[in-house]
Amino acid sequence: MRIVRTFADCRSLVIRSTGLVPTLGFVHEGHLDLMSRCRRENDLVISSLFVNPLQFNDPADFDAYPRKFDRDAGLMEEAGVDVLFAPSLEEMYPTEPVTAVVVKGITEFMEGAHRPGHFEGVATVVTKLLAGIQPDRAYFGKKDAQQLTMVTRMVGDLSMPVEIVPCSTVREADGLALSSRNVRLSDEARRLAVGLSRGLFHAADLVALGERDGAVIEQAVVDQLAGMSPEYVTLADRFSAETIARLDRPAFLAAALEVGGVRLIDNVWLEPDGSSDLGRCLEETSILHWEER
Amino acid sequence: MRIVRTFADCRSLVIRSTGLVPTLGFVHEGHLDLMSRCRRENDLVISSLFVNPLQFNDPADFDAYPRKFDRDAGLMEEAGVDVLFAPSLEEMYPTEPVTAVVVKGITEFMEGAHRPGHFEGVATVVTKLLAGIQPDRAYFGKKDAQQLTMVTRMVGDLSMPVEIVPCSTVREADGLALSSRNVRLSDEARRLAVGLSRGLFHAADLVALGERDGAVIEQAVVDQLAGMSPEYVTLADRFSAETIARLDRPAFLAAALEVGGVRLIDNVWLEPDGSSDLGRCLEETSILHWEER
Repeated sequence: MRIVRTFADCRSLVIRSTGLVPTLGFVHEGHLDLMSRCRRENDLVISSLFVNPLQFNDPADFDAYPRKFDRDAGLMEEAGVDVLFAPSLEEMYPTEPVTAVVVKGITEFMEGAHRPGHFEGVATVVTKLLAGIQPDRAYFGKKDAQQLTMVTRMVGDLSMPVEIVPCSTVREADGLALSSRNVRLSDEARRLAVGLSRGLFHAADLVALGERDGAVIEQAVVDQLAGMSPEYVTLADRFSAETIARLDRPAFLAAALEVGGVRLIDNVWLEPDGSSDLGRCLEETSILHWEER
Repeated sequence: MRIVRTFADCRSLVIRSTGLVPTLGFVHEGHLDLMSRCRRENDLVISSLFVNPLQFNDPADFDAYPRKFDRDAGLMEEAGVDVLFAPSLEEMYPTEPVTAVVVKGITEFMEGAHRPGHFEGVATVVTKLLAGIQPDRAYFGKKDAQQLTMVTRMVGDLSMPVEIVPCSTVREADGLALSSRNVRLSDEARRLAVGLSRGLFHAADLVALGERDGAVIEQAVVDQLAGMSPEYVTLADRFSAETIARLDRPAFLAAALEVGGVRLIDNVWLEPDGSSDLGRCLEETSILHWEER
């Protein structure tokens, strides 16, 4: 695997079909799934690792974001990544940036409402990665469902010739969605955090049994939170991210919860025929938690 | 020359080095200069023709914008254009667009202050053309100096691997900068309009003689306007488009004037060593005015 630091070097290695897996590093099995799929579907596999300050609305969250470069590079190599694009801050922002990519509507609810500036930072840096590397496909996790909706719409709006490939969420054995932030959970918070996925599994069960009422589906999540107050629980249209009152089109049911100072999000993709995609659960504890012990 | 209507068709024709000349059509010698230079410097020459509703702050101006497709296609063919990319509104905006590219600072003065939304529309459509076609070089006229500053900065900010090539302004024999809007000038307005370029020539003469004071340089333009009030006359930094008080860095002196209901802009590029680029004057009346008679 080659490690390159500039867009120009990265571009010169591009051959035939190229897939990109953008990451913020601190790789877990969710990222590795994206990379394996990218490996199967493309001649050249590029993964980017850049902790983008523009998308952190909270500077403390940016500072606390876990970073382990050598470990990440090793895991990517094993997953079949050909090129790790790890640009410096100077390569990404050689001058003070004045350009922003703004996606209206989609970014105003849920995560957008709770993290001002976050989606503008994501839209801008994803545009840079896609414009600068010009991959044929880019792989994004369904766990960030609203981000996926935004990126898919943005790429269409900007006429970018790239296919956005959504990939299922990977979970701990008990259901907790993998996230680089999970390592910051205390033992007690870790026990409480599972309520979030348990609620989503429960809601998906209700939908499979025929429930289509948005309020009932959302309440099924709240019921599993053992009294904790979620930031939001929302049944949203998968194309516009707008709240919908009934499951009558492709949707996702998304929730955010702060547990012990760590902000977690999770969701399930729901179809109007009652099917769902919750992703897969690992059989053992994930590498992230395994390493921390 | 081939005429194509979709980004995908256009992309499939891309070979080795590709140059793009974006236009709104109603081609004049200024456009033809861009195309000839593009022809000399690239294997494949693409010109786009799309009157973008998003960049017209005034719908009446959009409706009144002159359109002559067959004539434009013929002139482009003669200039050596290989591919005329003339997308439909549906190809450009298959769904209601929610994504905008916003460039801060640069777009807030001069044209930005007088045409709300204009630069956001330009930034977004230029991003679409560059992202969708992926040319190696794109050619822009210096006549739209602030637009050129914006596009150059935007392309850097978005890590787009394209070289923005600035091309000198082409003028009528008496100095009036060519513009598709000139055909809407009445005979009397046409006589008055020349004051704008006369003022810029005069200012460039003062600079060549040693003048560096911004207020004096700007006043030299106003003095040639025979009492007409310009919308603005501004000495601006060429990197930031901010007003500068002294010519101590690369700059442009830009002015806007409404004559007989037609809004005209013009500028001269000025260097701190006293040199300038006013472009070239045609020996005869331009094809646009010649055709109108």
